[in-house]
Amino acid sequence: MIVMDDVYAVILAGGGGERFWPLSTDRLPKQFLTLFGPRSLLTETVERVRSLVPVERMFLVGGSRYAPLIRRQVPDLPRENLVQEPAGRDTAAAIGLASVLLARRHPDPLMLVFPADHAIADVRGFRRTMRRAIAVLRRHDALVTVGVRPTRPETGYGYIVAGEPVAGAPGVRWVRRFLEKPSRARAVRLARDPRCAWNAGIFAWRNRTIQRRFAALMPDLWARLCRIRDSWGQRDGAGILAREFARMAKISLDYGILEKSPDVAMVPAAFPWDDLGSWSALERVLRPDRTGNVVVGDYVGLESADCVIYGTEKPIRTLGLKGVIVVDAPDGILVCPKARAQEVKRLLRAPVRRRR
Amino acid sequence: MIVMDDVYAVILAGGGGERFWPLSTDRLPKQFLTLFGPRSLLTETVERVRSLVPVERMFLVGGSRYAPLIRRQVPDLPRENLVQEPAGRDTAAAIGLASVLLARRHPDPLMLVFPADHAIADVRGFRRTMRRAIAVLRRHDALVTVGVRPTRPETGYGYIVAGEPVAGAPGVRWVRRFLEKPSRARAVRLARDPRCAWNAGIFAWRNRTIQRRFAALMPDLWARLCRIRDSWGQRDGAGILAREFARMAKISLDYGILEKSPDVAMVPAAFPWDDLGSWSALERVLRPDRTGNVVVGDYVGLESADCVIYGTEKPIRTLGLKGVIVVDAPDGILVCPKARAQEVKRLLRAPVRRRR
Repeated sequence: MIVMDDVYAVILAGGGGERFWPLSTDRLPKQFLTLFGPRSLLTETVERVRSLVPVERMFLVGGSRYAPLIRRQVPDLPRENLVQEPAGRDTAAAIGLASVLLARRHPDPLMLVFPADHAIADVRGFRRTMRRAIAVLRRHDALVTVGVRPTRPETGYGYIVAGEPVAGAPGVRWVRRFLEKPSRARAVRLARDPRCAWNAGIFAWRNRTIQRRFAALMPDLWARLCRIRDSWGQRDGAGILAREFARMAKISLDYGILEKSPDVAMVPAAFPWDDLGSWSALERVLRPDRTGNVVVGDYVGLESADCVIYGTEKPIRTLGLKGVIVVDAPDGILVCPKARAQEVKRLLRAPVRRRR
Repeated sequence: MIVMDDVYAVILAGGGGERFWPLSTDRLPKQFLTLFGPRSLLTETVERVRSLVPVERMFLVGGSRYAPLIRRQVPDLPRENLVQEPAGRDTAAAIGLASVLLARRHPDPLMLVFPADHAIADVRGFRRTMRRAIAVLRRHDALVTVGVRPTRPETGYGYIVAGEPVAGAPGVRWVRRFLEKPSRARAVRLARDPRCAWNAGIFAWRNRTIQRRFAALMPDLWARLCRIRDSWGQRDGAGILAREFARMAKISLDYGILEKSPDVAMVPAAFPWDDLGSWSALERVLRPDRTGNVVVGDYVGLESADCVIYGTEKPIRTLGLKGVIVVDAPDGILVCPKARAQEVKRLLRAPVRRRR
């Protein structure tokens, strides 16, 4: 089942802890949480990717402060495959760092890129999709992205508009353009359009190809990556990594490279996907009860419906509550209407008042 | 300032812990809570009553399981002034028990009765009111109740309709009738009517008078009280107390005696009063902030207004929440619209579901 041995996976385990406050925090971002079962999102991702490549060919990229968490959650990850970012610099820097380290390992590998914090339950559909992406790369020197068929007019996502078919790869199309976070009206049109897909942040390319793009489209970042690569493992390596990384632009790979590249191919996802962008995502991933409530923990609700209830600390009880999120976690308690779930991170920037 | 030495006070510290769940519980009913400051409602009540009579002339009546709590909160209460109910049998039994014990202490005392769990901040107005009640009793062999001027059409209270003036006691009137928990439409009319008042559960009478009424109107209960009195302090006293008390009717003194008595006088309360009947009472007793939120604890609210927030355990944060009660306490978390606050006790009878 494992694909050919020039294929490597890069799992992006960076990312902060704001959207699932108070459960996720800076100390414990979303990818490390056991939101839906016994295994964390990171562990679920690693297990899914294991169906494609062995753990020896996985690179996990994450902030150095999370290295102990990553080692605990993926105990058989080879030590040298844990890529510690000295600071969070978004996906271009994270993927670039993985790319220069991968080049030290293999002369001409294929790189698959996966976010660590998304929900993909259908492992067979996932594997089928990634094998198609790899097949495209065997015929075309392209950048491949995975597009998810929209199921609702989501305004918080990036959309991909597909164009001409890719020769020899049925269902795969060249990307015409990328659209970030559309208006509500536009999202309604995009979600209906069969040529449109959500950008799931899952990519595939030859390492050589993405390195040429870094050099051409992000030359400053590329120069810093080369200095890191050339000093890696040497006496001043850690200092150069920290210094150069801190000076890199904080830009997503989508924005820095994909949107400026003419040869991006979109493989349609053969699996249901959720980015778990906020607490309201729970009702798409867990099964609501008869009254539409999604419940984790001890709960009594009277005349309460369409709520998201999450609390493993103590009983939560509601009366006459409709469409509200209630979360109890060691760091605090959140209560807000489901429609406002996207804004939860705003709460973490507000000053705290103390009263009695 | 202390009134004459034939005046005794009975403070009713029974009552369960349902309406302020999850802060109040069976282990810690409302009267023992420090809801609004450093002192519990019971301690506040004792301090208020201390302005009328010394603690040596106060009887505290409460369930025997709460005796340690009462002793801790009122450390200078003489041991023999703590009247322990073997079970909760409502106010007729509680006041009757205090009455027969008081008769062993003084041949012809006046008895003042106070609930332990109401909010009365104006101690001078309280003292003025009770001195007027005592003055009425010096001239008339009546039962006195204190009536509170309604400030809203409350449907959960008992109302008093006043009639003819009491001779020699300006502002005091004979009670025409009692009305329990009126309909909304009737409550609106009653609240506007200057002859109507809320029944605050604060009473005054000669002990001999109330004992004659017990004998006439509640003869079974009175016979049991006499058996308890006659065996008090003897070898079988505790057993007789437990047995007789368990067999008493669970009836309020209002219903058992006052509503059937023709000579009840109403003294108007010269103080603002709140029975703290539910969480929504907090907004009447504490000062709301600019957005109408009443807050106890660490709280951040964005676009949140008219909420009641109570949590001293960990930060509570809300977003886009209007008119909702959020309470965090060691025993659980409550979330419900303010309009449903009266129904909180229903939650405690609902079965708990556990999910994960």
